Formats: sequence, C-alpha cells, structure tokens
Amino acid sequence: MAQDSVCLSDVKAAYERIRDRVNRTPCLLCERLSTELDCELYFKAENLQHIGAFKARGALNAVLQLSEEQASRGVVTHSSGNHAAALARAAKIRGIPAHIVMPHNSAKTKVEAVRSIGFEPQFCETDTPSREAAAARVQEETGASLVHPFDDPRIIAGQGTVALEVLEQVPELEQVIAPVGGGGLMSGTLVTLSEARPEIEVYGAEPAWADDAYRSLKSGKIEPPERYDTVADGLRTSLGNLTFPIIQSKLREMLLVAEEQILLAQRKIVETAKLVVEPSAAVPLGALIGHPGRFRGRRVVVILSGGNLDFGSCQLGK
Amino acid sequence: MAQDSVCLSDVKAAYERIRDRVNRTPCLLCERLSTELDCELYFKAENLQHIGAFKARGALNAVLQLSEEQASRGVVTHSSGNHAAALARAAKIRGIPAHIVMPHNSAKTKVEAVRSIGFEPQFCETDTPSREAAAARVQEETGASLVHPFDDPRIIAGQGTVALEVLEQVPELEQVIAPVGGGGLMSGTLVTLSEARPEIEVYGAEPAWADDAYRSLKSGKIEPPERYDTVADGLRTSLGNLTFPIIQSKLREMLLVAEEQILLAQRKIVETAKLVVEPSAAVPLGALIGHPGRFRGRRVVVILSGGNLDFGSCQLGK
Repeated sequence: MAQDSVCLSDVKAAYERIRDRVNRTPCLLCERLSTELDCELYFKAENLQHIGAFKARGALNAVLQLSEEQASRGVVTHSSGNHAAALARAAKIRGIPAHIVMPHNSAKTKVEAVRSIGFEPQFCETDTPSREAAAARVQEETGASLVHPFDDPRIIAGQGTVALEVLEQVPELEQVIAPVGGGGLMSGTLVTLSEARPEIEVYGAEPAWADDAYRSLKSGKIEPPERYDTVADGLRTSLGNLTFPIIQSKLREMLLVAEEQILLAQRKIVETAKLVVEPSAAVPLGALIGHPGRFRGRRVVVILSGGNLDFGSCQLGK
Repeated sequence: MAQDSVCLSDVKAAYERIRDRVNRTPCLLCERLSTELDCELYFKAENLQHIGAFKARGALNAVLQLSEEQASRGVVTHSSGNHAAALARAAKIRGIPAHIVMPHNSAKTKVEAVRSIGFEPQFCETDTPSREAAAARVQEETGASLVHPFDDPRIIAGQGTVALEVLEQVPELEQVIAPVGGGGLMSGTLVTLSEARPEIEVYGAEPAWADDAYRSLKSGKIEPPERYDTVADGLRTSLGNLTFPIIQSKLREMLLVAEEQILLAQRKIVETAKLVVEPSAAVPLGALIGHPGRFRGRRVVVILSGGNLDFGSCQLGK
C-alpha cells in the first residue's frame, strides 16, 4: 500500500466511529515538571484510556468497519501486549467472537485483562513463527479476520485520533513526542498533524536498546531489532510496511533513550503527575530529559501511551 | 456562621474565579471495576489536580478574594498536608508572600512540594497548640491572612467546584461518594448537589479508625477523633463549625471503612484505573466495596481526592 493510504479524513472518520466508546483522555499541564525542565509540558494521558492504552482506539476502529458477514466470523490476533485486550474489548462491543492467541509467557496482567473482558486466550509458543502459525490455524478453522496490531490502515487511523484530541486540547501547540514501537501510534500522529498543523514538530522516541526505527531511517529500509531486553517491552517491535514510509516521510527526528533514563522518567510521571505508566510510555519524557535543548521554552505534548504494569512486586508508599 | 453561609451561587462564582488556573480533571468510566462491582462506576480524578489534590481549588478561591491591601501582607497557614502546597501555589499565582508552617515530622514529599513552588516552610512542633502558636506568631509579625484548610466559606465554595464539573461530565448521575476529613470537600459537594440536583444521593466515607464524623452525626455535636493511626492520613481531622452543620443537614449517610479495605481499594485504583492515589482518596471506593447493596446497578461517581504519596519505598512493577 502506498504511504498516503491513510489521511486526515480517515482519522476524522475513525473518530466519529469510535468516540462514543473511547475515553477523551485528559491532556494535563504539569506545572512542576514544566518548571524543572524549562518548557510548558503537557501529558496526553492515554494510560487512562479503556484497557489502559491507546490501542483501544485502533482496534475498535478496525472492528467497527468489518462487514456483517466478516464480523459474524469474528476476529483473531496474536499479541502478548495491549492489542490483545484492545481487540477483545472491540469484539465484545460489537458482540462478535475474538480469538486471542498469546505466547504462554505473556505477563499475567495482560492475560487477566483479556479474561476480564470475557474471552479465554489461546496459548502458543513464544517465537514469531509459532505465534503466526497459531493465528493462521485459527483463521483457517473459523474464517475470523486477522487484525494486525499496527500495520493496518484502520489501526493507524484509529491511533491518529489521539492527536486529533490533542489539537483541540492544547492551543498553539508547538511540539509532540510519541513513542515508536511498531509505529501505529506514531504514523497516526504524523498523518493527523502533518495535514492539520504542519508547523508542529513531531519527535519519535525509542529505547537505545531498541533503536530499530532510528537505524531504519538511516538505512532507508526496515531494520529488525538487534536485542529484545529493553525495559520498555512495548517498543521491541520493528516497523511495518505501512508505518515505515509514513514515518520516513514525515517525522522530524528519532531520539534514543537510555534504560536508566526511561526508569527515571517513569518515576517522575508517577510521583509528579500521579499517573501510572508502563516503561514504554515513559520513553518520550526520557527523550525530553535527554535532549533539553530541542524543547526549552516550547509548548510540548508528551503522549503517555499506556499504564499496564505487572504489579506483582509493587509496593506503593504511604 | 449559619449553615447556609455557602450556597450554589458561591460555588459558581468560585468556579468563574479559578477555572483558568485549575485543571478540569477527568471523570472516567472504569469498565473493569464497573463489571466487577456491578454498578456504573466513574472516578473523578482530583489526584490529577495541580499539587495533586482538590485542595488547589479552595485555596485559590480564598486567595483571589483577598483585598489588595490584605494580599500585600500575604497568607499564612499551618498544615502537614496538601493544603500547604495548595496555599503556596495560590499565593504564587497572585504574587504575594506565603508563610507555610509545617510540623517538623511532615512527609518529605509534602515539604518538597511547597519548596518546588518557591516557598521555604517554617517548621514547628507537631502538637496542635504549637502549630497554632507558630501560625499566630507569623500572623502577628507580618499581618498575613490566615487561611484555614477547610472551615472557611471560600474554601468550601472552592471545593464545591469539583461537584460542579461532575454534573457536567456525567449525565443522569445517581450517587456520589466522597471522603470526609475536616469536611471541606464534602460540604462543598453537598452545597452544590443539594441545590442543583437534590435527587442525587451523597454518601460520605471515612476510616473506621477515624470515625469522628460518623459519631458526630450520631451525637449531634462535633466529636474529636479517638485515634490517629489510620493509613488515610488526610482524614484524621475532626469536622469544623462551618462544615459540620452542612454535613448534618444534607448528607445521606456516613459509611465506615476498615483499614485493609482502604488498601485493597487503593490497589484496585492503581492497577485498574492507572491513577496514583493516596490512601485517603481510596476510602470512598472502600466504602462502595464494603456496602455493595447501596450501589448495585446505579451510576455512581467516586471522588478521588488526591495522589500525594511518600514514594520513598515505592517499587513499581515492570
């Protein structure tokens, strides 16, 4: 598909489709971190979205566009992360079957999230071929539609609605920083802002230990990750055939973030903004902290992508 | 002062005064806990208010009403809690001096909050006479205006703006649960709702270990706390001369919450709603969990009062 396969009108149509069933998440000025970091800093709190992540938007936009005949056969995906719960929720809203294939080592909290919506996941081995084979088998048996977590124009348009809300919430916005994993959120953000307000500078952020997007932009082709051990588990994926060209043509700059900076940023968000965020969601603030010169004195929105932590070992203070 | 000294028009006037400088915090439907608790549950997230608590509203409303002459001499309060930072922030916005007297054993995070706004607290002994004497001394020396944390009509009117927003955010609301410490938030909530929408049932929640409001309603006079060791440190205060009669005449019922239920509720909010809340803010959800019959099948808003935790020992999961 060509890089212009998703445009602002698709994002606006997605918003009309989903807005009654997604939270209009707040975009909150953080006075304390603004002072500390010498900029005007807003957090777009998609951790407060249903299922705890922006993924609820794209999945719902995809499921609501299935024909009656497609819908009756259900949807299928393989995911160890937030897309699993997002697709389950979308299927439940439409009242159709959802086949959620999860690697057997998925975080307990993500498995419970799918179950709490009312679907029992199917478990498979952890390697990509096994996951794809398991999903393909379900597809063959049931005729269910596969909904990819990011490389799908309906998903990209749905994720673009985050930026649509930001434009309404923050007047005279100058800069946006969003995390880059598979690139669904980032390409939706770019599609929206490049058409609606091209003067806004959009920065991508990813862990230095998952710098595949950074390298892909350098080499001009999709590069695979070289390691899979960043704490930001949502950003370990490589870009897709649809998301890469959008990012390549529209992104201002990719910023890399060290592991310790991710954890520092996470702590600052929890302590100061009172928002529970997963490490992946803290990467953009880590980028701001690591590259202060680009953001000094500017009005900047940091997109907090999600808040799904494994709380097994969590000890809150008093 | 008579119990009708604060009315809905005061709350509306307060809102016009402060709305440009407070967050319109979100009121978020929590689908997962709604299913689990068999009601339609919304969280009014005042933990996302500036300084991390609803107290920012009342303090700003009070400070903005000082005459020029009063304002020039500054404000003073004694507080170990969120009112300290709230008054400091309000003074900074108006550009006047703030004298914040804090017991020397105040939580480090609360002291740092005042400092981060630009004021150095003055420390005193922890007993009430010492605190009052220290504040009185400052008042005498400087001519600063004392701003009480809750027993002040300007404070009550300011806290009432939380309910004003809730009315706009949740159509056909049936029930509200709010915590009761000194009663500022509760009496503001009652003033607003009893006049604007008297059919809405308002419940108060307090720890069983800080049941002074419950006992006060029984005896018909303000009862002091009998112990000071509840984990909900913001609710250890007794009611005031202004807040008690409002609560006495307008509240539907006080519900008591056991300590373990407070901590369970806190964990549910953090894990499910992705909001950082202090134990005091979790008491209303604890009340809902402990008295499910009153709320089954109803549309209920739980006010989350604040998110200021001492994170010294905090370990977030991955």
